[in-house]
Amino acid sequence: MTTHAPRRRTRPTAGSRRAGRDTGQPPAAPYATRQIPYYEVLGEEGLAIIERNADIILEEIGIEFRGDAEALQVWRDAGADVQGERVRMPRGMCRQLIQAHAPAQFTQHARNPANNVEIGGPHTVHVPAYGSPFVYDLDKGRRYGTLEDFQNLVKLAYLSPQIHHSGGTICEPVDLPVNKRHFDMLYAHMRYSDKCFMGSVTHPQRAEDSVEMVKILFGERWMDPDTGKPRTCLISLINANSPMTFDDTMLGAAKVYARHNQACIITPFILAGAMSPVTVAGTAAQTLAEGLAGMAFVQLINPGAPVVFGSFASSMSMQSGAPTFGTPEPALVLYVMANLARRLGVPFRSGGSLTASKVPDAQAASESANTLLPTTLGGVNFALHSAGWLEGGLAMGYEKFIMDVDQVGMMQTLLKGVDLSENGQAMDAIREVGPGQHYLGCSHTQANFKSAFYRSPIADNNSFEQWNADGRLDMAQRANARWKALLESYVAPELDPAIDEALLAFISERKAAFPDSNT
Amino acid sequence: MTTHAPRRRTRPTAGSRRAGRDTGQPPAAPYATRQIPYYEVLGEEGLAIIERNADIILEEIGIEFRGDAEALQVWRDAGADVQGERVRMPRGMCRQLIQAHAPAQFTQHARNPANNVEIGGPHTVHVPAYGSPFVYDLDKGRRYGTLEDFQNLVKLAYLSPQIHHSGGTICEPVDLPVNKRHFDMLYAHMRYSDKCFMGSVTHPQRAEDSVEMVKILFGERWMDPDTGKPRTCLISLINANSPMTFDDTMLGAAKVYARHNQACIITPFILAGAMSPVTVAGTAAQTLAEGLAGMAFVQLINPGAPVVFGSFASSMSMQSGAPTFGTPEPALVLYVMANLARRLGVPFRSGGSLTASKVPDAQAASESANTLLPTTLGGVNFALHSAGWLEGGLAMGYEKFIMDVDQVGMMQTLLKGVDLSENGQAMDAIREVGPGQHYLGCSHTQANFKSAFYRSPIADNNSFEQWNADGRLDMAQRANARWKALLESYVAPELDPAIDEALLAFISERKAAFPDSNT
Repeated sequence: MTTHAPRRRTRPTAGSRRAGRDTGQPPAAPYATRQIPYYEVLGEEGLAIIERNADIILEEIGIEFRGDAEALQVWRDAGADVQGERVRMPRGMCRQLIQAHAPAQFTQHARNPANNVEIGGPHTVHVPAYGSPFVYDLDKGRRYGTLEDFQNLVKLAYLSPQIHHSGGTICEPVDLPVNKRHFDMLYAHMRYSDKCFMGSVTHPQRAEDSVEMVKILFGERWMDPDTGKPRTCLISLINANSPMTFDDTMLGAAKVYARHNQACIITPFILAGAMSPVTVAGTAAQTLAEGLAGMAFVQLINPGAPVVFGSFASSMSMQSGAPTFGTPEPALVLYVMANLARRLGVPFRSGGSLTASKVPDAQAASESANTLLPTTLGGVNFALHSAGWLEGGLAMGYEKFIMDVDQVGMMQTLLKGVDLSENGQAMDAIREVGPGQHYLGCSHTQANFKSAFYRSPIADNNSFEQWNADGRLDMAQRANARWKALLESYVAPELDPAIDEALLAFISERKAAFPDSNT
Repeated sequence: MTTHAPRRRTRPTAGSRRAGRDTGQPPAAPYATRQIPYYEVLGEEGLAIIERNADIILEEIGIEFRGDAEALQVWRDAGADVQGERVRMPRGMCRQLIQAHAPAQFTQHARNPANNVEIGGPHTVHVPAYGSPFVYDLDKGRRYGTLEDFQNLVKLAYLSPQIHHSGGTICEPVDLPVNKRHFDMLYAHMRYSDKCFMGSVTHPQRAEDSVEMVKILFGERWMDPDTGKPRTCLISLINANSPMTFDDTMLGAAKVYARHNQACIITPFILAGAMSPVTVAGTAAQTLAEGLAGMAFVQLINPGAPVVFGSFASSMSMQSGAPTFGTPEPALVLYVMANLARRLGVPFRSGGSLTASKVPDAQAASESANTLLPTTLGGVNFALHSAGWLEGGLAMGYEKFIMDVDQVGMMQTLLKGVDLSENGQAMDAIREVGPGQHYLGCSHTQANFKSAFYRSPIADNNSFEQWNADGRLDMAQRANARWKALLESYVAPELDPAIDEALLAFISERKAAFPDSNT
């Protein structure tokens, strides 16, 4: 049923390097490290109000842990007040568990160690969009995603130096049965990229499968002899069922990953007005409470297991109840949550390039920019959904992916801040040129020109006449040409044939062990 | 040659109010006042380096004041070192002149006092784009601007509560002779809007004409009996000829406005790499030096005359030398210059919704957002070019205008920050709803829903199916429908017929006094 691309001659990271030259940018780092300050919208007093309200929610209202008797027992043993499935945590308990055990920063390991990423601290990892059942491109329009789309998008992420991570469900391969597609998705990340990737969370058994495949891929590198624990090679998305609820599927996956020392992103996924109050401060307090409960639970399961505090908050259309993106209120939530995560001392996930637009038009671009800039300035560590997202996450767009990669590149330049070296100050140039002259030929300009300004591979800065002569293409049309050229240039990273065979054998055996199902 | 629209029945500010209701937003304020912090990329040490370098430029290299003997004499009398047209200012001289005399904040008066704007301090005034010879819309494409376009755009600005100001050369009415079109532009601002506007700077005599027309428009309100000085009813754009040069045209206009207590925006207009060094810190030091010299000159002409420190900096395409917009480097320059303006204690102008795109596509939207968000977070007081700009300023776009107005509205919501009142904290709602329920029907949501989230009049947040059934329009197409509907709804603000007649008589007399010319 599933076809894998034929083996071909491979060169390690060649595609990635070539794409870097193509954009005119200096070689990309495996992750971004900020040299600019955080933007913070609240001061100490405001943040303390939100933290106090989150504590009140945990202590007085509590969080439901549904369908998981073990989870309830774990909370009971830890001293929480458990009534039915409702867990009320004594003031400060969750914060204390997290601060005592959870790492402020950790390494996610890639099969190519040059692509390991640091998650937390001053670092930002840009990750493709996640979870779309549909894909969109200008040629074929909107359609259900397939494994071929999935593989194409993994390749595009691999070919984009600005994208640090291969992501997870980069689109849903709807042509495969729900209960087996995780094998093919994981294999695509392993085979067509050598960057980090994410694990399956749709069933605890699929989380176990994810771990088994990673053990095969990493071989001896799986265990860290210094710590005696597995290296963190997977990061996975554990969403809360807001308001104030975790379900057994997510709890089951979280337990699997935590016990194997793999990272969990605990994300209250909120459409404000439906799943949280319609206000920024109310949404922030609820998000913090849910995040604290989820992260503390992971620490109860395996103290020290890496966790990321996630926040996904959208506003709502008053007319239709549909989620809206790029509006000011979710940006304010993001700034507040990033700040609260830093105070808590855990890595933070939020933002990306979000939009409700169905096509890669001006709406898509402005809504994405209004999310991606707060992602950058607010201090997001794990920027899921950085590239490709369309239609409120229902579609992964090929052109949108290319456009977002360009914007992410700009953010990475912005994160580097202002060069205040002697060369950056450029006083020699100002002295050399003087009033009324121009800087084009001066020695400082000649020495710095190539790396001075961010260069977009898809923006058109030509004259109207030149643009007209070039066919009057808009940005989406130029992005269309670019993703095709990139895929054309793709060369797979080298993978030890023995590992590849072992992975395929594992998949084949597991797929044969149970019937196809679409749940 | 020039035709003015026929008189018609008018209702004061009716258009403006109706447009406000149409967007679903609360009534707009005449200007925005920030309740969020500034974003600052440099600390004290970095800012002090830029300030020191600007002082070195002024003292050692100097600024050229070209073709204006009076200007040179003024500098000589003030104690500067004048060699030929080169003026070198002793360390600290410019800063001292500005800090001793220039207001940190001032009021620009509108003929409708409800539309007066505060320029400086925590306030932001959003102003249309300025200076395009071309206009663009989806129906007729790109073409030279006409007086009819000019009038249409003044009406659109009047109808947009998010736009606080009527602007200046909102497009060039190329169908009118260069030496007389300022009369028709000023008349359009006065007749078709009741918001503040800008004066002509293309010749000192045209600045005098601007002042004369304002005297007619304001009548007794022109003079402030408390200060014995004219009220500031005009603000005008005085660009430096970077690097380190002012020309006689701009100096002549600046002198006219300063002597009448009208505001000047002193703006080094810089394509970095050609007109300044290719670095952020170098561009910032040169911009500060030029701004200091220009603003100090205004204070020497008339101590206390209102000035605004302007910065316009774009990056450059390495391939073509064309200006590029929305890149990270100009955003960094903006953050630095806004900070330096606050330290100096003068209002700041920069940013807007800038793009090199020829059409209102994704490039236009992302480049504009990458300029408008720094404009908002950095702390721009006079945000010229906030709406309509296309093609590096060569074209004013009708659809782009509508799209930018929407984005400006979002920025005005962002500037309001986080509501930390009891209602904003929404703990009652969280208590009422509880785990696993939804907030849609709770009393807090019902009470707050209408004003809770920014509502875009042109974003499409519907399902793919609904969007498809609605004709698959992209944002530019929806904006096309909106500007037509707005113009259809236009009702002119009331203007005293005697004033209108006096303005028309003045224009007629002045136009007859000299022959048409295109310089």
